Amino acid sequence: MAIKIYGSFRSPFAMAAGLAVYEKDQEFELVTMNMKSPEYMNNINPFGKIPSYQDEDIILFESKAIMRYVATKFEGQGTRLLGSTVHEQALCNQWLEVHSHSFTPLIMDIFRAIFRNPEQPDVSVLKPALEAFEKVLDIYEARLSASKYLAGDSYTLADVAHIPFFYMFNALADEGSQKILTSRKHVYAWIHDISSRSAWKKLTDRPDNTYYKRS
Amino acid sequence: MAIKIYGSFRSPFAMAAGLAVYEKDQEFELVTMNMKSPEYMNNINPFGKIPSYQDEDIILFESKAIMRYVATKFEGQGTRLLGSTVHEQALCNQWLEVHSHSFTPLIMDIFRAIFRNPEQPDVSVLKPALEAFEKVLDIYEARLSASKYLAGDSYTLADVAHIPFFYMFNALADEGSQKILTSRKHVYAWIHDISSRSAWKKLTDRPDNTYYKRS
Repeated sequence: MAIKIYGSFRSPFAMAAGLAVYEKDQEFELVTMNMKSPEYMNNINPFGKIPSYQDEDIILFESKAIMRYVATKFEGQGTRLLGSTVHEQALCNQWLEVHSHSFTPLIMDIFRAIFRNPEQPDVSVLKPALEAFEKVLDIYEARLSASKYLAGDSYTLADVAHIPFFYMFNALADEGSQKILTSRKHVYAWIHDISSRSAWKKLTDRPDNTYYKRS
Repeated sequence: MAIKIYGSFRSPFAMAAGLAVYEKDQEFELVTMNMKSPEYMNNINPFGKIPSYQDEDIILFESKAIMRYVATKFEGQGTRLLGSTVHEQALCNQWLEVHSHSFTPLIMDIFRAIFRNPEQPDVSVLKPALEAFEKVLDIYEARLSASKYLAGDSYTLADVAHIPFFYMFNALADEGSQKILTSRKHVYAWIHDISSRSAWKKLTDRPDNTYYKRS
């Protein structure tokens, strides 16, 4: 059975799972289903969320669990994604958690503020969200001034997890808001670097990726 | 340098990190500092959160990253915590994410409702939080009717992460609320099993554990 990812290119979490598969030189079929349908909740993910993952050995949900599984299962193929040393592995895990608990909640607040009124987002919602996010980005800037990637010298799942969110931000946020990234030298160089990888290009070039394209 | 955990027994996340250390037959010193102090944020964790971890090799934050590091570093000692097969390892990772994204937000809502007014929690806040949490527990009940532990036959970090939250719940929630656990046969047996382990007993017996003791 070919790898299936249940989800949509609308979801940065699904994109991250797909990117991990591509970094390991594997292919996948994107399956879009109603995630609240009994068919999906009974057979794939009882929590009714995306993405989920299926291959001949396993059905799995939660994007970071999927990414870790793919990185382990195809360990000898494609890009090593778990760090080259015990130290990098630990920091990869640390920054994956930072992504979950510090980065994602704030950037999702920004996205929601924009989605609510894309033409003219409510500044009273957007401004504090951007400000809170900037404080987190300052910590990223400090980290990335000391190492090339979040975990150290190696590109890892910690970087993979972030890429789709910057892609969405780039497509959705106005020029003024973009400055919170462009003004941070090391963050900006890092985003450019990790977004230039061929696996990411291959993913965003798929015909079923019809969202968040910057016109 | 002995292992240091920065945090407090007030934090179920810090307790989970400490439990992982004990399951690996290691000792640790609990260091309580102001987590918003420059000393802590500059040297230990720039996000100003607990727990953090320090040994002779690394400074690390985020409880699940700490638990994974400890499980890997002391791989040959104490209890194996990462699963016995690739399948169990994947499900351990999956249920750790479920803990972060489905379990913790709801049980923390319940704790906050109780903390706000311990004598008489606001039913209009507590009741919907309990109801939402019950739906998640139904999924746990289904899972634990099919396997002894969350990841399969082996006790793993996925179980470790949950124990302190049930301990807090047991100490804080009234008898009526306790029924959401006692009425679910497999969940209840699982909680009893994982809470009976000697590492957990050793942790809760520490003299610096002065919170959440059921009188």
